[in-house]
Amino acid sequence: MPEVCGHFCSKSPALYRPAAGNKTYISRQSGAYVGDRVEVLDTTLRDGAQGAAVSFTLEDKIRIALKLDEVGVDYIEGGWPYSNPKDREFFKAMKRYGLSRAKLAVFGSTRRRGVRPERDESLNSLVEADVPAAVIFGKSWTLHVREVLGATWEENLSMIAESVEYLKSHGMEVIYDAEHFFQGYQEDPEMALASIEAAWRAGARVVVLADTNGGTPPHEIYRIVGEVKERFPAMPLGAHMHNDIGCAVANTLMAVAAGARHVQGTINGIGERTGNADLTAVLPTLELKMGLKVLRDEPPGVKFGRLREASRLVYEALGIQPNPYQPYVGDFAFAHKGGVHADAVMKVPRAYEHVDPALVGNRRVIVVSEVAGGASLALKAAEELGLSLDKRSEAVRQALEEIKALEREGYSFDAAPASALLILMRRLGIHKERFKLLEWRVVTGPTSSAYAVVKVNIGGREVLEAGEGVGPVHAVDVALRRALTSAFPELQKTYLRDYRVVLPTAVKSTESIVRVTVEFSDGDRVWRTVGVSSNVVEASIKAIIDAYDFALQLDGLNLH
Amino acid sequence: MPEVCGHFCSKSPALYRPAAGNKTYISRQSGAYVGDRVEVLDTTLRDGAQGAAVSFTLEDKIRIALKLDEVGVDYIEGGWPYSNPKDREFFKAMKRYGLSRAKLAVFGSTRRRGVRPERDESLNSLVEADVPAAVIFGKSWTLHVREVLGATWEENLSMIAESVEYLKSHGMEVIYDAEHFFQGYQEDPEMALASIEAAWRAGARVVVLADTNGGTPPHEIYRIVGEVKERFPAMPLGAHMHNDIGCAVANTLMAVAAGARHVQGTINGIGERTGNADLTAVLPTLELKMGLKVLRDEPPGVKFGRLREASRLVYEALGIQPNPYQPYVGDFAFAHKGGVHADAVMKVPRAYEHVDPALVGNRRVIVVSEVAGGASLALKAAEELGLSLDKRSEAVRQALEEIKALEREGYSFDAAPASALLILMRRLGIHKERFKLLEWRVVTGPTSSAYAVVKVNIGGREVLEAGEGVGPVHAVDVALRRALTSAFPELQKTYLRDYRVVLPTAVKSTESIVRVTVEFSDGDRVWRTVGVSSNVVEASIKAIIDAYDFALQLDGLNLH
Repeated sequence: MPEVCGHFCSKSPALYRPAAGNKTYISRQSGAYVGDRVEVLDTTLRDGAQGAAVSFTLEDKIRIALKLDEVGVDYIEGGWPYSNPKDREFFKAMKRYGLSRAKLAVFGSTRRRGVRPERDESLNSLVEADVPAAVIFGKSWTLHVREVLGATWEENLSMIAESVEYLKSHGMEVIYDAEHFFQGYQEDPEMALASIEAAWRAGARVVVLADTNGGTPPHEIYRIVGEVKERFPAMPLGAHMHNDIGCAVANTLMAVAAGARHVQGTINGIGERTGNADLTAVLPTLELKMGLKVLRDEPPGVKFGRLREASRLVYEALGIQPNPYQPYVGDFAFAHKGGVHADAVMKVPRAYEHVDPALVGNRRVIVVSEVAGGASLALKAAEELGLSLDKRSEAVRQALEEIKALEREGYSFDAAPASALLILMRRLGIHKERFKLLEWRVVTGPTSSAYAVVKVNIGGREVLEAGEGVGPVHAVDVALRRALTSAFPELQKTYLRDYRVVLPTAVKSTESIVRVTVEFSDGDRVWRTVGVSSNVVEASIKAIIDAYDFALQLDGLNLH
Repeated sequence: MPEVCGHFCSKSPALYRPAAGNKTYISRQSGAYVGDRVEVLDTTLRDGAQGAAVSFTLEDKIRIALKLDEVGVDYIEGGWPYSNPKDREFFKAMKRYGLSRAKLAVFGSTRRRGVRPERDESLNSLVEADVPAAVIFGKSWTLHVREVLGATWEENLSMIAESVEYLKSHGMEVIYDAEHFFQGYQEDPEMALASIEAAWRAGARVVVLADTNGGTPPHEIYRIVGEVKERFPAMPLGAHMHNDIGCAVANTLMAVAAGARHVQGTINGIGERTGNADLTAVLPTLELKMGLKVLRDEPPGVKFGRLREASRLVYEALGIQPNPYQPYVGDFAFAHKGGVHADAVMKVPRAYEHVDPALVGNRRVIVVSEVAGGASLALKAAEELGLSLDKRSEAVRQALEEIKALEREGYSFDAAPASALLILMRRLGIHKERFKLLEWRVVTGPTSSAYAVVKVNIGGREVLEAGEGVGPVHAVDVALRRALTSAFPELQKTYLRDYRVVLPTAVKSTESIVRVTVEFSDGDRVWRTVGVSSNVVEASIKAIIDAYDFALQLDGLNLH
């Protein structure tokens, strides 16, 4: 038994060296292992999907995977096909997409007791996924070996070794997850160590120490990872942490401080029970605070900005509001209340901000005096509409005021910039009214049928159209499309790609406000708009109207 | 300068000793300082109230303070009267209430530069609050002393010492918060140490090291607190952590591991920017994982259960939904998904749960889902309905098949177990049809108005009712309530607490399927139901119908 106290000192592999650059405000002492690379495996689509009330569609999964590839993670763990046959579709569907950096990984367990690897359906389902990497989990806790598997330690060790060898023999990289490692180590360290040694000797390229039930405090994580590193200095170690005591992020950092160089986690920390380590917090901290290197870095300087996009995408797929208090990526992560403080933060940012918000794709928000926003709106107008605007101009200021007023009513333009640009275009006087919805009525009842009537003014002419649909929103959309495409045939190629409903405020009753965000495309360009109302049909119509309007405005600017 | 690496080993005051009791699953090695007491200061009402979008009424503050006293914290930091005059009312109002254990503390800064303490309005506002304790913050970072105060270090030290002495001379206990201590220490350790020594020598009863901008990683917190402890072994130390890198909870634990015996935090971690350390996670971990003692303990065994009540109360005051994924206190904190797993957790809880949920006033939740087997459904029936079922029985098997078929259509029972139980009750033949929705029609149009007609069969009688609402769902709910409450007045106390809409399948057009999940309560019990349709109104109605039906079935089983 090693000494019971941890190893932050001489026995630690850590060597604190100064980190370069002060924009990230790294302290002189905290830059451990400056420059070392830490490999990142994202398991949003597998462990994240095991969270209660989490359920991704195939399309959600594909969009998230493509975004993770953009973020620059090393591995995307896409699913557990043996346990969830629907995950097979994902691996099949991904063959149509080229990933620029990330490798797909499939998840499963070691072979069953008493079954030869080539006969084990679970192991073979990993091979059949036909991806470069497999993540397999095995037992490292005597309690589990005995009570859950009903096996001896010898059997367990050969289950681990043979499973790794079998997957290797099929040309797969193997990442070994040592389930319940920390508890196993606390109760029976020699057997826990034997289990990971078996995986390593059999050819696992990294051994991931998992705090599966998430109850290990950070100083214990540090101690134990340090002791493992001391025992097997050449074994590449990884960390897989759960958040049951609110320490998943910190436990991941502590494992890296003790020598791990592979981290696993999910976007927004979603996952079983209280979730996994939130990569949107782990990754910037590893690089900006501890001086290590994570993620791809081209183009340089944008990588952590993509974490915010990934965070939004995952919240959207879950149908829940982004957490504004989330570290690094939340709307309030760099919020300063007004007055002296706000003034001081402008003069000496380092005195009040732990990193430059721009480094993580976020921005400083001054909560009371609403100075923020002009720059980003002007930037958006330049990007999307090719307009060059002064961020201090009257039109920009007025548009911002209107946007803020709408945000107080429940709007959010973060995920719907096209609606914000329409407001700006009106203030600039360059918005051309191509049509106006004058009236609409919907009648609906059971069996999903719905009828709609719309009256639209198009160039001074009133057009009345009817629509039948499987629901009220569909019925209105059908009627609207009929009315508009007769005058604007170019709208025929536009289509709805996404439709999301969230409740932006506290829910008190069925009277609550709903916010609908839609995504449209013309096959080339993609744009998103938003509508808010206590009537879900009206909120949907507002968003759809904005979407058609935006398409026509782009045509007017010859931007399609 | 001390050595740059941390001190987990011999220099650390920590001594890991075995902790007693295995119900809390403390590892043999992790029980640091077993039996030491850690003092708790709650700052929900002060630092928590500084969070963006947080605003408490005076009544909220009083209710929260009384609950915190029940929880058994040592200090309740109630406000900052000099900065926020409304906080004076709170201290005045609290004179009408007797606190059984907690002491009220008032917050403020050290005296201004060049002003004698007795002339300093801010210091005098602390005395005027007329409470036992004052928390004052002062500067420990050279950058702030120079750039923000515009003072010399000598001036700063006398501002600190004189302020502490002045408050002591008025009979107050003084808790000294060393603002930005960790950054100050990293850049100029000798001056940072001098600042806290000044406060201590002047009579502060505890020196609280604050990571004010929340950017210090946990291994750095441990190193620095350890070094301070080494320099001033007799100085009582505290920790005040912010969550900007997602480590506030862990940083608090690491400070305690390094020798701090006073912790500050807020309920649910609310606070500036990304918030403070969440006491609902910090406190159970200190006691159940690290073997220290926190909070009052009478009656024995209930203390952490009150944290969940406090958590709910604070969410209610904020008007936001409780976070179901929150460690210890969240609804999903002990949620288990999947068949085999659910089976195993019943047999060997310790194999899957980091603490006994009952110790923290929470309970195990078996999530009913696609992959789950009969065991989880039978368990759910036992928990919710008091039914003892064989998981292999025909009724359970049939119910599971129906659940799986519905899940293929877009249903998800993870977050809506009451709908799954209704299916089971029908298969068991114990579901009593109390009412049946025969027809409904909705007419809606712009300006958010909607009208609904429903026809309901109640005990063979057809009831026709109309409803007007701000949207179609609201209108149907109003009509339905009218129809049902005339026959079932017990439904009057039920209300909708949450309403969520997601698109469970690929979005192709406005024809997409939507899934609506609702949460109802009768003030005591909470249940969730689900409805799916391509018509968002119909999906909502299905969920609401299930919710009313479930309430009536519980009444039938006398479970309300």
